[in-house]
Amino acid sequence: LDGILEAETMEKITVAFQGEPGAFSEDAARKLLGERAEPVPYRSFDEMFQAVTKLEADAALAPIENTLAGSIHQNYDLMMAHNLTIVGEEKLRIVHNLIGLPGADLAGLRRVYSHPVALAQCCRFLGSNPQIQVESAYDTAGSVKMIVEAGLPDQAAIAGRSAAEVYGGSVIAEGIEDNVKNFTRFFLLTTEERAAAIIAATPQTPRKTSIVFRVANTPGSLFRAIGAFAMRDVDLLKIESRPIEGRPWEYSFYVDLDGDCQDPKLDRAIAHLRETAESVRVLGSYPSAT
Amino acid sequence: LDGILEAETMEKITVAFQGEPGAFSEDAARKLLGERAEPVPYRSFDEMFQAVTKLEADAALAPIENTLAGSIHQNYDLMMAHNLTIVGEEKLRIVHNLIGLPGADLAGLRRVYSHPVALAQCCRFLGSNPQIQVESAYDTAGSVKMIVEAGLPDQAAIAGRSAAEVYGGSVIAEGIEDNVKNFTRFFLLTTEERAAAIIAATPQTPRKTSIVFRVANTPGSLFRAIGAFAMRDVDLLKIESRPIEGRPWEYSFYVDLDGDCQDPKLDRAIAHLRETAESVRVLGSYPSAT
Repeated sequence: LDGILEAETMEKITVAFQGEPGAFSEDAARKLLGERAEPVPYRSFDEMFQAVTKLEADAALAPIENTLAGSIHQNYDLMMAHNLTIVGEEKLRIVHNLIGLPGADLAGLRRVYSHPVALAQCCRFLGSNPQIQVESAYDTAGSVKMIVEAGLPDQAAIAGRSAAEVYGGSVIAEGIEDNVKNFTRFFLLTTEERAAAIIAATPQTPRKTSIVFRVANTPGSLFRAIGAFAMRDVDLLKIESRPIEGRPWEYSFYVDLDGDCQDPKLDRAIAHLRETAESVRVLGSYPSAT
Repeated sequence: LDGILEAETMEKITVAFQGEPGAFSEDAARKLLGERAEPVPYRSFDEMFQAVTKLEADAALAPIENTLAGSIHQNYDLMMAHNLTIVGEEKLRIVHNLIGLPGADLAGLRRVYSHPVALAQCCRFLGSNPQIQVESAYDTAGSVKMIVEAGLPDQAAIAGRSAAEVYGGSVIAEGIEDNVKNFTRFFLLTTEERAAAIIAATPQTPRKTSIVFRVANTPGSLFRAIGAFAMRDVDLLKIESRPIEGRPWEYSFYVDLDGDCQDPKLDRAIAHLRETAESVRVLGSYPSAT
């Protein structure tokens, strides 16, 4: 209740994101928090996490998984390094567009810039336009900014529609991604103190819990660990292993569970996991994105 | 026994690897196959897999995991796309060196090139030498080739010692990686026809098996799946999830098991897994690297 009252006074939530204005992360922040979102760009994921830890921003929106490219491990590692809590998630359909100067057309293009992952997701389009030379850049929206500033009509960028709007570019071709089942999942992360207020400002859908644990390197240890959930019919939505630094060929497991960590069933399952695992950390419970 | 006879006549094994001569993958191929290895460079992982499928090369050596950077998902995906069998594994300690022209010294350097992962693994060294500008390149060994060909004494590259030997560079600083527990694990992959002959040529250490399976998206499905191994005391050495293309938020599981898939216990466990999983593919059994 304290959190809800506080949230009513929290009219704006500053959200750190990685990339230039117009990035997919910025779209996701607005989709999740609506009018309350006040996105703030940071150059790197590292700087974005630090901004929240140092209380420069209320929260960060970190992409953690893409349905085609897989997990974004750097952000799993940064979650472990920073003591932040997951308070929300968002899923965004990634639509790539070919963006050029106003008046530019496909036939006149000679060069296209974008982030390597975006370029890789538009292979068919790029393959059928071999006259266009492909160049990798550090960011999707940043590529639009660059080509608009350069002002050359034979250059284009691949990015989301918001980037065209932000920098005054023109969409030459829309939806050029190979696979329409291209979604990115984001976590909204904040400090313990701000968690309740931000949770109150996010949609009140059914909840999910993310945890990370380590088990001893012995036969059956993972089976016993996830048995704590299976035996209570707690649905394990995702499991992901990450190498432990300094302990070659040993792993931590990141698990997403259906339910809130304060539900009695899930609370007991996590207590049971603590009996069998070497370490357990609850990363947060948050409303599930639809 | 057939395989062993055939292997005696297989004096040379051509091994496709990604990168330029002098790459860590080439070192790993020689470590695994000794005098028999005849490494052949390919520009991309894709071309390397195709070379084996088209029988241009006997086998490919694919890096699949680094103890700091994690799994190399592109190669897991390529394993699924190509019908190859794992016949060996190798683990290589990754030692990064600063390599320049003969006679070059640290004080005179202004620019260093390497693959972004190698640069990221040498952050402390690069941070304590701020006079050197850092540039990312497509390959470690390829960066050495480039700076030797350019002939500029103020440029250097970060790569393995072999690259210095291949291109006539000079090691200016040795072992500059931040973390000494830096190992890469490789799979030796080949076609079904050549598998027996190549297995006979690799070290006869205790064996491991790699499989990939999918389970229904229901509570307890993964628990039941890995129970097939836990209940038989088959040690599960690694588990890794990968998103299924076209089925957002569903995953395949890549699992490494202790033992050979023809051992009666492991054979029965895999048969049991087939009862509960939606699909199971055995990727291969191979001598375990030490």
